[in-house]
Amino acid sequence: MSSNGVIRCKAAVARAAGEPMMIEEVELSPPQPMEIRIKVVCTSLCRSDLTAWLSQAQPQIYPRIFGHEASGIVESVGQGVTEFEEGDHVLTLFTGECMKCRQCASGKSNICQVLGLERQGVMHSDKQTRFSIKGKPVYHYCAVSSFSEYTVVHSGCAVKITSTAPLEKICLLSCGVAAGLGAAWRVANISEGSTVVVFGVGTVGLSVAQGARLRGASRIIGVDTNPEKSERGFGVTDFLNPNDHDQPIQQVINRITDGGADYAFECVGDTGTITTALQSCCAGWGLTVTLGVPKEKPEITAHYGLFLSGRTLTGSLFGGWKPKSDLPSLVDMYLKKEIEIDDYITHNLKFEDINNAFELMRQGKCLRCVIHMPK
Amino acid sequence: MSSNGVIRCKAAVARAAGEPMMIEEVELSPPQPMEIRIKVVCTSLCRSDLTAWLSQAQPQIYPRIFGHEASGIVESVGQGVTEFEEGDHVLTLFTGECMKCRQCASGKSNICQVLGLERQGVMHSDKQTRFSIKGKPVYHYCAVSSFSEYTVVHSGCAVKITSTAPLEKICLLSCGVAAGLGAAWRVANISEGSTVVVFGVGTVGLSVAQGARLRGASRIIGVDTNPEKSERGFGVTDFLNPNDHDQPIQQVINRITDGGADYAFECVGDTGTITTALQSCCAGWGLTVTLGVPKEKPEITAHYGLFLSGRTLTGSLFGGWKPKSDLPSLVDMYLKKEIEIDDYITHNLKFEDINNAFELMRQGKCLRCVIHMPK
Ligand SMILES: [Zn+2]
Ligand SMILES: [Zn+2]
Ligand SMILES: [Zn+2]
Ligand SMILES: [Zn+2]
Repeated sequence: MSSNGVIRCKAAVARAAGEPMMIEEVELSPPQPMEIRIKVVCTSLCRSDLTAWLSQAQPQIYPRIFGHEASGIVESVGQGVTEFEEGDHVLTLFTGECMKCRQCASGKSNICQVLGLERQGVMHSDKQTRFSIKGKPVYHYCAVSSFSEYTVVHSGCAVKITSTAPLEKICLLSCGVAAGLGAAWRVANISEGSTVVVFGVGTVGLSVAQGARLRGASRIIGVDTNPEKSERGFGVTDFLNPNDHDQPIQQVINRITDGGADYAFECVGDTGTITTALQSCCAGWGLTVTLGVPKEKPEITAHYGLFLSGRTLTGSLFGGWKPKSDLPSLVDMYLKKEIEIDDYITHNLKFEDINNAFELMRQGKCLRCVIHMPK
Repeated sequence: MSSNGVIRCKAAVARAAGEPMMIEEVELSPPQPMEIRIKVVCTSLCRSDLTAWLSQAQPQIYPRIFGHEASGIVESVGQGVTEFEEGDHVLTLFTGECMKCRQCASGKSNICQVLGLERQGVMHSDKQTRFSIKGKPVYHYCAVSSFSEYTVVHSGCAVKITSTAPLEKICLLSCGVAAGLGAAWRVANISEGSTVVVFGVGTVGLSVAQGARLRGASRIIGVDTNPEKSERGFGVTDFLNPNDHDQPIQQVINRITDGGADYAFECVGDTGTITTALQSCCAGWGLTVTLGVPKEKPEITAHYGLFLSGRTLTGSLFGGWKPKSDLPSLVDMYLKKEIEIDDYITHNLKFEDINNAFELMRQGKCLRCVIHMPK
C-alpha cells in the first residue's frame, strides 16, 4: 500500500451531484514537488461538503472526492519539502498559506493568492488531479479530498501539529470550529459585556457563540429555523426561531436588545440572512460578519442608510486565521482545555457509513459527524 | 430686528422643489426651551442642499429654507440653555449631539438618537417650524436652515468656537470638509504608505484626499466623470475619468494598484458607485467607506465573495465626528495651519446671489461657494 509510487486505496467517490458516494478503489499518484501525501486518520463532514455535493453547478468535475476537514499522518513528501517528514501529524487546510504572496506577506490577511480556495476540482500547481480510476481523473474538493484513506495536498495546505493531540477530535479545527472562533476573536474582536446574535446555530455558529462566551459577551442570541437546535449550549443565552414570530426577526431582535445587537454573525450561507443580520445590528457601531457561502443568489442587497448610520459589514474566510501560523496555538488551547471541541461531535461513524453523515447533516440532526478511516 | 420676541428677517425661501429661491421676509419665533437663535454670518452651499432641493420626494414640506453648513453668532438663548450666551461664535450642526442617548453615551458613535438627521422639515423637539410667512409655516432643512439672516437651532445642534476663528472660512467645517477628514482619520484610520481611491472629487472627496495625504498615503487616486475636476490638488496623485477607459474603472484600479486599493471612499452619493468602490479594494483588508447620500436607488448590491475574501463596507455620517466634542479641535488645527480650508472656497457670493451658487454646483463648476449674509 504505502510506497513512494502510486498508492491504491479506498475513497468515497461521488459519481454525480447529489448521488450517494461509493467506496471505490482509486489510484493516488505520489506527491509532486512541494506536495505531501497523507494517510487520513479522521475527517469530519462540514456543511460546505454537503452544499457542494448537492450543487448542480459543476457537473463536469465528477467523479469527485469530497472532504476538507481532516487530520492525518504524513506518508511521504515530494521534492523540495523540508517542513514535513513521514510520520508528522497534520491538519489539512482548505485555504492554504504560501507565506510569500502580497496577502500572506501582509501579516493582516489569510486570503492567500497562490493557495486560496480551489474551486475547479484540481491541484493548485498544475491544475491536474492526483486521483484516478483506471487512468481517468477523479477530481478533488478544495484541493484536500479527505474522504479517502490517503490524499495528496500542497505542503502549504497542511499544518504540522503536536503528536499528543487526539486526531479524532482536533480534525474539527481544520475548518468549522476554528472558523467560528476566529470570526468572534480575530474578525469581530468581541468585547466584554456585548450583545451578539448568531444566525444559524450549527457547528460554525455555535463556535462563534463559544468564542463570544469566552470574550465575556453578556447575551448571545441564537437564531435558527430548526427547533431541534434550541438547546445546544456553547454559551447561547436566548434562542429565536423566526417561524415562532409574526414580526420579522430583525424587529424582534431590535426590540429585545433595545436598538440592535453589537455584533451579528451570518452562519447560514444565505444572502437574505446577511441583510437581516445587518438590520439586527445597532446604529453607531453594529458589526455584521458573514461567514457562510451562499448556496443561491450571490448578491447581497442592503439599504445604504444601514451603513451611513454606522453599521459595518465584513466577511471571514476561516475566521481570519492564517492557517499554518495560527492553528497550532488553537490545538494548544484545546489541550489546555481553554476551548471546547468534543461536544460538537454528535456522531462517530465508520468510513463505509459516510453517506449516513451526509443524510444526518441534510436533516439537521447532527453537529459534527467524525468519520474514522480504517486503521 | 433683534429681540427676544419674533424676528422679521430675510431668508431664501424655496417655494417648490427645483424652483429658484426668492429672498423673502419671514417671521422667526424666539428660541424655545433648549434652543438658540443665531445671526448667520456665512453659510456655504453643500451638495446635500442641492440634492434635497432637486428632489421631488417631499413636495408637502414647502415652502422651505435650505442651508446646513454655517457659522454665526448667538442672538438669544431659550429657557434652560446654559452652554451658550449672546455673542458666542458658533458652527451649526446638521446632526446634533444630545450627550445622553445610548449612542452619544457610548463614546463610539455620533449617530445621536435624539438630535440626529431631521428629514421632515421641522424642529426635533415639537415637530413644528420656527419660521413662518403671514402665519403659515416655512419648513426647515436638517433643523438648521442657514439660508436666512437668522435661524433657530437646538442647543445640541450648534457648537461654540473661539471668536478668533474667521467665520467666513470655518463654516466649511460645519459639514463637508470635516466629513471628509473624519472619514479618512476616524472611520478608515488610513495608515502611512497606503493606496487610497476616492470616488467623487468635490469638497468631501478632496477632504478625504487631504486627510489621506496628512496620514502619509503614498497614492491617492481621484475618480470623477467631470474632467474639470482633474487638477484640484489636495493630495490627489492620479486622476481617472471612467469615460476615458474602455474597461470598467474598478478593473483599471485593480490593474494599476496590483490587486486593489487599501481604502476606497464613495463621495458621489450613488449606490452603484458603492459597489464599484468595493470592487476597487483589495482582498484581505480592503475597506470601503460610503459617505454620500444616494439620490436614487437606495439599495446597495454586492457579491458576497467581496466580503468573504476580506473586504469591509462601512459608512460615515459627518466623518464619525462627535460634532460638539470634536469640532473645536478641528478649528484649532485650522488656526495652526495643520489643515487646509481656504482652497476649497472657489466662490464668495452675496446672499442675494444664492441661486448662482446652486447653479454653479449643479454644473460642477465650484467646490464651495461661501454665501456672505448681510452685516
Ligand atoms: Zn468547512
Ligand atoms: Zn499566499
Ligand atoms: Zn452637507
Ligand atoms: Zn444623543
